[in-house]
Amino acid sequence: MNEKTIYTDTVKPEWTDYNGHLRDAFYMLIYSLATDAFMDRIGLDDTARRARNRSIFTLEAHINFLHEIKEGAKARVDAWVLGADAKRIHLYMEMFEGDNLQPISACEQMLLHVDTGSSPKSAPFDPDVANRINAMQDQRQQPRYAGRVIALPSASRESGAVRPA
Amino acid sequence: MNEKTIYTDTVKPEWTDYNGHLRDAFYMLIYSLATDAFMDRIGLDDTARRARNRSIFTLEAHINFLHEIKEGAKARVDAWVLGADAKRIHLYMEMFEGDNLQPISACEQMLLHVDTGSSPKSAPFDPDVANRINAMQDQRQQPRYAGRVIALPSASRESGAVRPA
Repeated sequence: MNEKTIYTDTVKPEWTDYNGHLRDAFYMLIYSLATDAFMDRIGLDDTARRARNRSIFTLEAHINFLHEIKEGAKARVDAWVLGADAKRIHLYMEMFEGDNLQPISACEQMLLHVDTGSSPKSAPFDPDVANRINAMQDQRQQPRYAGRVIALPSASRESGAVRPA
Repeated sequence: MNEKTIYTDTVKPEWTDYNGHLRDAFYMLIYSLATDAFMDRIGLDDTARRARNRSIFTLEAHINFLHEIKEGAKARVDAWVLGADAKRIHLYMEMFEGDNLQPISACEQMLLHVDTGSSPKSAPFDPDVANRINAMQDQRQQPRYAGRVIALPSASRESGAVRPA
């Protein structure tokens, strides 16, 4: 655990494949639950979302699967904000087994802030939320798996902070 | 349905959020089940995987969430192969509601062929499997959401077949 840890969980039997390993889609579920925890942290918990008619939609996600993890193992998600504008957050997460320092997976997501009123539409963050988002930005820490492109042969954005696996 | 349709499913209640919409991670589960169907189609069904000590691992995935879909709706996944080498497949999928022509989501994945013997390691496809993979390549059809990079402001690979959303 460290200040970046936003979520922990245990790999459930129903999340595994016939080998007893976490199925790819359930890495994404753990990240999805971690994103819920991220929303809580920036002041958009369920109560606030309902009271303010606000929500966060995932526009896009990129996942790297680095190592397997088995049923019953502890999973930990660390997260920080790579960037944000008035309505969007570029969130970066890494998943670890237990207290290990080498990630078993990484995920970046583009999140959109939405006004869920009668006609749902994108909306600027409220100032208190924007302040909490900014507090989770960390320019010092290099994202190990961000800005990646899926291609054969392996390609990546030239200008990005990319370290091919 | 068309020749590219590899999987259909119905949005289950336990896959939805409090609004009754499919949660982001369960788009990924539908793609994961579609990838199982893809494995069947290239001759790597469960029986063959066990008999040959072979499996397919997902190395990396990129998803675009374009539209919501509700509990009980029919989801359809079309797929084709964007590229392949001796051990890897660049698989592209789009998800549709019912028989609609506009996708509600897109997903590209990099898949690795693995020898699951005593010490698991990447391995070349057997010739019969390689032939089936090649038969699923389609250079004519332009992938609407491939080669994308997550970034603020929106960036994309300059040379790629990219149409920003």
